[in-house]
Amino acid sequence: MAYIKISKEALFQNVSKIFKNLGVTPSDAEEIATVLIKTEQWGVRSHGILRVNSYVDCLISGGIKAEVPFTVEDQHGAWAKTSANGGLGIPASVKAMKLAMSLAEKYSIGMVNVKESHHNGAVGYYANMCAEQGFIGISMSTGNPIMAVTGSAEKVIGNNPFSYAIPAGKYRTIMLDIAMSAVSDGKIQITKMLNGKLDPGCILDSDGNPSTEPDDYFNGGSLLPFGGHKGYGLSIMVECLAGIMSGAGILNEIDSWNKEKGKIGNTGHLLMAIDIKKMFDYKWFISRVENMVERIKASKKQDGYDNIVLPGELERRSLESSGKNVKLLTSTYELLEAAANKAGSKLEL
Amino acid sequence: MAYIKISKEALFQNVSKIFKNLGVTPSDAEEIATVLIKTEQWGVRSHGILRVNSYVDCLISGGIKAEVPFTVEDQHGAWAKTSANGGLGIPASVKAMKLAMSLAEKYSIGMVNVKESHHNGAVGYYANMCAEQGFIGISMSTGNPIMAVTGSAEKVIGNNPFSYAIPAGKYRTIMLDIAMSAVSDGKIQITKMLNGKLDPGCILDSDGNPSTEPDDYFNGGSLLPFGGHKGYGLSIMVECLAGIMSGAGILNEIDSWNKEKGKIGNTGHLLMAIDIKKMFDYKWFISRVENMVERIKASKKQDGYDNIVLPGELERRSLESSGKNVKLLTSTYELLEAAANKAGSKLEL
Repeated sequence: MAYIKISKEALFQNVSKIFKNLGVTPSDAEEIATVLIKTEQWGVRSHGILRVNSYVDCLISGGIKAEVPFTVEDQHGAWAKTSANGGLGIPASVKAMKLAMSLAEKYSIGMVNVKESHHNGAVGYYANMCAEQGFIGISMSTGNPIMAVTGSAEKVIGNNPFSYAIPAGKYRTIMLDIAMSAVSDGKIQITKMLNGKLDPGCILDSDGNPSTEPDDYFNGGSLLPFGGHKGYGLSIMVECLAGIMSGAGILNEIDSWNKEKGKIGNTGHLLMAIDIKKMFDYKWFISRVENMVERIKASKKQDGYDNIVLPGELERRSLESSGKNVKLLTSTYELLEAAANKAGSKLEL
Repeated sequence: MAYIKISKEALFQNVSKIFKNLGVTPSDAEEIATVLIKTEQWGVRSHGILRVNSYVDCLISGGIKAEVPFTVEDQHGAWAKTSANGGLGIPASVKAMKLAMSLAEKYSIGMVNVKESHHNGAVGYYANMCAEQGFIGISMSTGNPIMAVTGSAEKVIGNNPFSYAIPAGKYRTIMLDIAMSAVSDGKIQITKMLNGKLDPGCILDSDGNPSTEPDDYFNGGSLLPFGGHKGYGLSIMVECLAGIMSGAGILNEIDSWNKEKGKIGNTGHLLMAIDIKKMFDYKWFISRVENMVERIKASKKQDGYDNIVLPGELERRSLESSGKNVKLLTSTYELLEAAANKAGSKLEL
């Protein structure tokens, strides 16, 4: 695949300018640029710069409101309920996780729900942001119904991402970010591009029959949960904890990508922080995590493996090797250019 | 398979008597009987009455201490650290979840870690116990290393069960209890009994090669995570949250079934409660959960399905149809008889 290499700093200026042009506050616009660039540098291209254009479309259609505040609506002990008020999911989630960390500093645990929000990128970003500051982080989000559950023949629920991250000393952080579907939408797109077939158990066609044909998904088919009833069961957990508990939409009440112009997506999130510094000797905790990592890495390898990677290790290595530059897929660059045009801007890279 | 039908009350008396005979306090002995009978009535036979004999073996070998207290060692805000002091995992987990609920009543969320514990049966019991009292419950536990991780050729980590439960009004509770392995030990035993083969991706043999032969697991092989890196990543979460955070053993420091006689297992658990009554109008929350259930059940069915079951629905139906009687597998009955003999008791059923 063809890439374009550009400086991280220039990309930051250009991405934040696009959002500022559309009325997003400078600090929120810069937060979005920071989150999407880091996600891109992790190598999670499906949730990085690629998304700028989709968010721009929603801002223009009115499905995302540019100038709305993030508000704390209620708080009881270690839990707070907040609203993004129809605004962008990414800055709302950063603010919610900061609030969760401040609650955790007081109560050891902090949990924050967000309603009236929107697609918030890679949920792993928020969990990892916690772990980089010495907290354990957990984050989850509802999403558009694109997945069938065990026994259903149609899309009923989102593939509801879940993430956790744990501080890991010299290994930086352990971070897992998973969707509840066997494959992602992005993976199906790539399989289609390569004229390949999907593994059995990944999708249903529009009649609810099992299929391995990428086009069957795009023509009204559904994703299937990973691990059968296990992934299904975890998607219900996220629907309840991030959707219902937030007072946000659930199931087909969610419209993240604004099929109905002007109607907000009403996605819900849950962000949770655990303040281990308050609970233990922090150095002891980190030494135990490092020891766990080392023992797992030291185990006997399967043929074909010369290393055992911990969750989030590939993302961390990709970030480190990316450094002060970002390699964008040409197709992502072109979408970013389109987004800049829509926002009355022009890329200067 | 052959079953023996016995009265729940008589089973309760007999099981609790076995533990009392071995020096377990009457209230703990009755708690174990209650938990194992309910699990059996759920149809989760691998974690029900079958386990009495294993616990008895550990009590006799000294790997589980009979007369030790459950102690609260530390508390900061919404979190408490406790110890089972080498005692039985089941009564310790019930006490820890009660403590989590009382912390949640104060702080909206309560989280309790347990160290120096033992195999605690079906972790779903504790989450569900919360949900029956109007809380959201989450529970997880470490266990003996019986699973390889992505890339490893040997057992390195437990299959670390995770559970959540949510009050669901007329649907009672939604409850998911999953291990992180693609199949359970019990499933492999049954496949072996039936001279069957396992699906690919379930186990490795003792050399770390993929296998579908049940015997290869019992001859030193390993389980594999469900969903590849997803199940692996979730098992690491449980190892950190239930193992390290508890100050319990991790990886091969855990010896739940006392291969070394007299050495405690040092399993760790995490029990968490969320007091939704404190946070919302409880009726509103329940109506949203009921509505979610109804919409999922109303979705178009796949061929071969006349109902879509919610997580925990099959267990609930099994419990309801079981009523005042319990159907034990003959093999389970025989093991219970053996356990009674070892405890100087005799079954009176």
